[in-house]
Amino acid sequence: MYDHLRVPKYCFRIPESYPLALAAPLPYAGITVYTQMVRHKMSQPGKSLGIIGLGGLGHMAIKLGKAFGLKVAVFSTSNSKKEEALSLLSADHFVISSDQEQMKAMAKSLDFIIDTASAAHLFDPYMSLLKTGGVLALVGSQSEITFSAASLNLGMKTVLGSATGGMKYIQEMIDLCAAQHIHQEIEVIPIDYANEALEGLIKRDVKYRFVINIENSLK
Amino acid sequence: MYDHLRVPKYCFRIPESYPLALAAPLPYAGITVYTQMVRHKMSQPGKSLGIIGLGGLGHMAIKLGKAFGLKVAVFSTSNSKKEEALSLLSADHFVISSDQEQMKAMAKSLDFIIDTASAAHLFDPYMSLLKTGGVLALVGSQSEITFSAASLNLGMKTVLGSATGGMKYIQEMIDLCAAQHIHQEIEVIPIDYANEALEGLIKRDVKYRFVINIENSLK
Repeated sequence: MYDHLRVPKYCFRIPESYPLALAAPLPYAGITVYTQMVRHKMSQPGKSLGIIGLGGLGHMAIKLGKAFGLKVAVFSTSNSKKEEALSLLSADHFVISSDQEQMKAMAKSLDFIIDTASAAHLFDPYMSLLKTGGVLALVGSQSEITFSAASLNLGMKTVLGSATGGMKYIQEMIDLCAAQHIHQEIEVIPIDYANEALEGLIKRDVKYRFVINIENSLK
Repeated sequence: MYDHLRVPKYCFRIPESYPLALAAPLPYAGITVYTQMVRHKMSQPGKSLGIIGLGGLGHMAIKLGKAFGLKVAVFSTSNSKKEEALSLLSADHFVISSDQEQMKAMAKSLDFIIDTASAAHLFDPYMSLLKTGGVLALVGSQSEITFSAASLNLGMKTVLGSATGGMKYIQEMIDLCAAQHIHQEIEVIPIDYANEALEGLIKRDVKYRFVINIENSLK
């Protein structure tokens, strides 16, 4: 029976209509891609966005991209995610990144690329997909980035990165997600399933994000 | 005795007060650094600019930086250019890039870096000198660029490049150089010295830019 609640510094208002479990990953997976998109003008309808990798960050980037009215191309190493990208997430293109013909067909077609891949990969092939003045935003956790100077200089390209976003952007993004019914795909688990969930993460046998249901776990 | 002159597409007005020989390198060495500076807000007085390499592009970057009211730090592999950077070109700091103590003293101190070096070099040490949101602009001709994702992501850094600039910027820069008496350091040679000059370029025994005096060569 409390009438005051002392909150830590980082506190967000979740709109009443927004399911709490779905809101859980927004201040990480959501904000990481959202920040890049709004800071670097990737929210202009009609522009074209490429997304490398279709995991927790990648699928939020698709949903936000479609909400902003962008044309969205998804780049993946595996054909197994094609159906999901095009049907479930409404991406406009799905490209197998190892297929040189498919990659060539996208040359100089993208205004922006958000790179969510955590595995090491080549950068030059993606730089060549950017239009003049195009921007590649890195949000994944590759250990090292290597590309040729010509990839950057010819066509005035930009490579930039960030790992999260500030309080103002987080609230703005939560409100946008609520208004546009943008939901992170999640799997809700009880806390005593946490070890199995971790094993799944290690084996990469996981989709998107786990959310632990603390309330039910403690009953 | 002509009263009309047909000019190619690329034609600039050189202010009467500006010595023609000094204007010759501006549409390359000048514009390459100027474009980066004005496009990426490196022209705000009081901001701090680092310049890697003190050749034809580097010394124009210093002169433009000082004209914009920036604090300018020059990074060089060789102490031999210190006097020139500080006295002749009025740079505020001169740093030997292999000296870890000197580099550490500049950590997180720069808003921008213009990288004019054409030799291969490490990028991570320079990324750590940028403030949060800092920008490294590449104008040199290194073959390959490698840095860690953390160097980019932690502190929202940007790496970008370009090799020249458009007509509007070139005229703007020439007018600025004339108004502010910014002169490229040059060596004027007759055309029959061109072979010796080329040999000097190969041996790197050259300062800044050669300008060939066609008018006198043809007398």
